[in-house]
Amino acid sequence: MSALIFRGNDPIQALSVQDRGLMYGDGLFETLRASGGELPWWPAHWRRLKGGAERLGLPLPDEGVIHAAARELLDVRPQVLKIILTRGESGRGYLPVAGPSTCILSVHPLPPPMAEPLRLHWCTTPVAQQPVLAGMKHLNRLENVLARRECADAGFAEGLMCDGDGQVICATAGNVFLYFDGHWHTPDLARCGIAGIAREKLLAMLEDVRVAPVTRDQVENADAVFLCNAVRGIMEVRYPGSVPVIGHAALAALQQRFLAAHPFFADE
Amino acid sequence: MSALIFRGNDPIQALSVQDRGLMYGDGLFETLRASGGELPWWPAHWRRLKGGAERLGLPLPDEGVIHAAARELLDVRPQVLKIILTRGESGRGYLPVAGPSTCILSVHPLPPPMAEPLRLHWCTTPVAQQPVLAGMKHLNRLENVLARRECADAGFAEGLMCDGDGQVICATAGNVFLYFDGHWHTPDLARCGIAGIAREKLLAMLEDVRVAPVTRDQVENADAVFLCNAVRGIMEVRYPGSVPVIGHAALAALQQRFLAAHPFFADE
Repeated sequence: MSALIFRGNDPIQALSVQDRGLMYGDGLFETLRASGGELPWWPAHWRRLKGGAERLGLPLPDEGVIHAAARELLDVRPQVLKIILTRGESGRGYLPVAGPSTCILSVHPLPPPMAEPLRLHWCTTPVAQQPVLAGMKHLNRLENVLARRECADAGFAEGLMCDGDGQVICATAGNVFLYFDGHWHTPDLARCGIAGIAREKLLAMLEDVRVAPVTRDQVENADAVFLCNAVRGIMEVRYPGSVPVIGHAALAALQQRFLAAHPFFADE
Repeated sequence: MSALIFRGNDPIQALSVQDRGLMYGDGLFETLRASGGELPWWPAHWRRLKGGAERLGLPLPDEGVIHAAARELLDVRPQVLKIILTRGESGRGYLPVAGPSTCILSVHPLPPPMAEPLRLHWCTTPVAQQPVLAGMKHLNRLENVLARRECADAGFAEGLMCDGDGQVICATAGNVFLYFDGHWHTPDLARCGIAGIAREKLLAMLEDVRVAPVTRDQVENADAVFLCNAVRGIMEVRYPGSVPVIGHAALAALQQRFLAAHPFFADE
């Protein structure tokens, strides 16, 4: 793993133990798929990072500086670039003090594909409803860690998480779409969950998608279900319930359109 | 600020940017008041840290090693020791991988006393209900950061936070007790909030305290209200509503008992 750390726009050598990212999870992150040394979805990721930074009141470093540094870290293999943006250093205490942010870039190998056919665990760890943080890819991710551990303990590679009212919100590391009644559906994320970039690209691509509350019953009885994230693209779920779903024409067509629009997801 | 970092029981020089404390807030912290180079509440703090580590599945370093290192960092002035315990380093991905934890010790000056008379802001940032994390002093503290900023923006040094149902849970950096109908009351923290060590000591000291849901009305109309934490002890709130409360005999008696039992809170 190679990494770079910035304080504002200036490279620094080491992370302070008083960084608020560590102390409070006071920051955001992005995980981008790289292809041939390029970051095709950079604009969408940077836009989300900027939006989150505005909501949290975090200063953003210069986009050109960070983008250039990120590209220098990459080689031509399919890779993952992770950006962490924190509120920077401060003394003890929750009150944010104005100062430069910390930005950490690191490059990682592309993870292996998900097990096929993908089966999902129903996580008992709920997603807490918190409208003030909903949608953001912030650093407070203990729920995801606990839910992911729960999946592994139960012998699954992924799982779905519900909010305290039992509405389906997301996978531990991705968004979920399901097809029934002739339409695509994906959970509304007004109260919790991360508004993923792959989800955003798919919402732009799908003409008649319904963004609405989703129940566990709807998932288990859907004609087709997939997960998506910006690293793996579309991941078909073959067992949303106990019976496998047969590859649905709507999903096959969507996968084709998605790969045509974003061919770097076919890299290996 | 002086600091020490441990990987398991071994001192290390620098924090990895792949530490899960930074990446996901995957860890816990404790904030202890030190007096004359000693840590009078160490056993209670370590017990809570251990309890949180068990719930999260974090390995705990050796208590003797960490306690000895902490005492070496302190001098005789009243100070604050902060302990951060994280799940240590791992690659990208939420799944915890077994390995040594990271433990960071740092020493800070005692903060100045709260403004007198203490007025509280009613924070609009809610505390999310998350029973899986309730009670723990974990590193996912964005809510507290946003609530604290909100207090500052409104001209207050502290504020009270409610959950999504409007129940009063806590201050941004402390627990709350109120006196009415001849009894002390403090919010139930089964669904959210941090079970503070000062709160724990007070619960053990008070004979007839009621741990139950608390409403904003009850706070604003209470005979006496105070906040507490392990750094500042008891902080009397003079304006829970728009009219100041007169020092109540029950609070005066409690303050006396608290200081008699824990005289290091009188250090200056």
